[in-house]
Amino acid sequence: MTLHAITWDGSTDRLRLLDQTRLPGETVHLDVETVDQLVDAISVLAVRGAPALGVAGAMGVVVALDQARREGWDEGTLEAAIDRVRLARPTAVNLAWGVDQVRPLVAQGRDAVLEAARRLAAEDEAANRELSRLGVDWLLARVDRPRLRVLTHCNAGALATAGWGTALGLVRELHARDRLEFVHADETRPLLQGARLTAYELAEEGIPHAVQSDGAAASTIMRGLVDCAIVGSDRIAANGDVANKIGTLGVALACREAGIPFVVAAPWSTVDLATASGEDIEIEERPGEEVTRYAGVPVTPSASVGFNPAFDVTPARFVTAVVTERGVVSPAAGERMD
Amino acid sequence: MTLHAITWDGSTDRLRLLDQTRLPGETVHLDVETVDQLVDAISVLAVRGAPALGVAGAMGVVVALDQARREGWDEGTLEAAIDRVRLARPTAVNLAWGVDQVRPLVAQGRDAVLEAARRLAAEDEAANRELSRLGVDWLLARVDRPRLRVLTHCNAGALATAGWGTALGLVRELHARDRLEFVHADETRPLLQGARLTAYELAEEGIPHAVQSDGAAASTIMRGLVDCAIVGSDRIAANGDVANKIGTLGVALACREAGIPFVVAAPWSTVDLATASGEDIEIEERPGEEVTRYAGVPVTPSASVGFNPAFDVTPARFVTAVVTERGVVSPAAGERMD
Repeated sequence: MTLHAITWDGSTDRLRLLDQTRLPGETVHLDVETVDQLVDAISVLAVRGAPALGVAGAMGVVVALDQARREGWDEGTLEAAIDRVRLARPTAVNLAWGVDQVRPLVAQGRDAVLEAARRLAAEDEAANRELSRLGVDWLLARVDRPRLRVLTHCNAGALATAGWGTALGLVRELHARDRLEFVHADETRPLLQGARLTAYELAEEGIPHAVQSDGAAASTIMRGLVDCAIVGSDRIAANGDVANKIGTLGVALACREAGIPFVVAAPWSTVDLATASGEDIEIEERPGEEVTRYAGVPVTPSASVGFNPAFDVTPARFVTAVVTERGVVSPAAGERMD
Repeated sequence: MTLHAITWDGSTDRLRLLDQTRLPGETVHLDVETVDQLVDAISVLAVRGAPALGVAGAMGVVVALDQARREGWDEGTLEAAIDRVRLARPTAVNLAWGVDQVRPLVAQGRDAVLEAARRLAAEDEAANRELSRLGVDWLLARVDRPRLRVLTHCNAGALATAGWGTALGLVRELHARDRLEFVHADETRPLLQGARLTAYELAEEGIPHAVQSDGAAASTIMRGLVDCAIVGSDRIAANGDVANKIGTLGVALACREAGIPFVVAAPWSTVDLATASGEDIEIEERPGEEVTRYAGVPVTPSASVGFNPAFDVTPARFVTAVVTERGVVSPAAGERMD
């Protein structure tokens, strides 16, 4: 069964979200009927991941239109509601992008908007499947081993996208070709997207895997326990510098040292040619409490503060390959994205 | 007040341990009366840290002698009990070393063994203070900055030793000389010795610090937020390879890349000249549940297993300095320990 974290459900004619705050303990779906429900789901990260948020934004416009019809909103109320979806997480550019993709179609009616939103989701999934094929072709041409052992960090899977996934898309493609042996999933502190979400996706697919501390990544790589690392990205600069979840840089350094490929998988929409290099990428700092607490329990003395940069930037020279649906670029070999 | 995690208590005439599994939430002491209790305390890491384990090994011989007298053990039972203490954990050379230091005195009686064990503790603390002075002299001769910003990993403090600390000994010495600006403490998953224990020691001393995810170490270093990394060690091979808590290797790789000193601080007893290189060091694999659960709460799907190597080995070429009470050796510059 293909995992879809965000769908427009044909039977209920409603937006349906897999509540990612409850994973992996519980599989709970949210049927979203109101803008309030959607904004709340986005805020608490029930839906997350840049490409998934783009789809949530687009489908959110349909949610607003349906609620407007039911409740007899005037145009000002509708526009304000759509703006609330657009800004539910002001730092997530994809959310606004998703809203903006379909908003011009509002005049053509709700069905036109829904069709565009569904197309946007389908295009995201198609891009993921294509980049997965290209990435696996590239990898198999370079790693001489019947089945590959892969390290990944954070969650760049079906849950973070409209479907299939980017880094986990390559993992799925390897598995489908019977060329996958094992996945080492970094737990990805502080929010444990690896332990909770990547492990969930791998378990659902029956893919052999283990979860490990983020600190284990370097030795897993340098001991020769994996053949490559594959990660997603939040932004790729024109020169090939890659912003991704905190901890990615350490994975890249170890891969360089071990001489194995460090592969970044992302849709072309993640490539930001307006950003010259990683120096121009602002590193978001999230609340320190995410670090000083673990699964809700305080783990440090009360006098201690948490330092919580959400992302790091991996310099292009460590990035063996950037795989998008347009092909493979090798920043470490001097190739640029533009 | 000087913090001592392991003492022979004069009033009860028993081994007394500060239960480090309960910190920072609760300050609970364990009075150890049997070898079983001690082996259990070592296994669950109620007492941990290479030098502290040396003292625990030596005092453990006294625990065994006292239990043997109470329970009328024959010599074979006593020897087997002492061997159980000696092998309670495989990677730290100090545990066996501590036992071996006092074992020859068993024939002279329990008080002679106790006196030797206490002397060993006093010598450990004295060694830590000496190596801290030497290490700080070395650092200040190389880092041109009024006050240093230090990254550390795991806990190599008073709690990990007989007192004062090794890596945190250097931090305390910098602080005492008013040459310390700030400490970035890696939380050190899975058991959070950085978040729980290092932060506890730093908070007690009033040293400015922040706790960060282990994954943040590489970018903290490469963004220039620290001037050096200082860590402890569980075993140092003759060629300068260093075994230490999982995650240390990634810190070393980032320091090498950033061109800042990666300093290993440890008493000479941690240097194992009988171990030629890191390849000969057995890496303890601890239960996967330490990764897949926290405080009894599962954080991964039930189908997921945890991969939990407790240590990694940092090759000598990344180790800028090994500081012991005998002086500073530079494996990265080709110097050997022997």
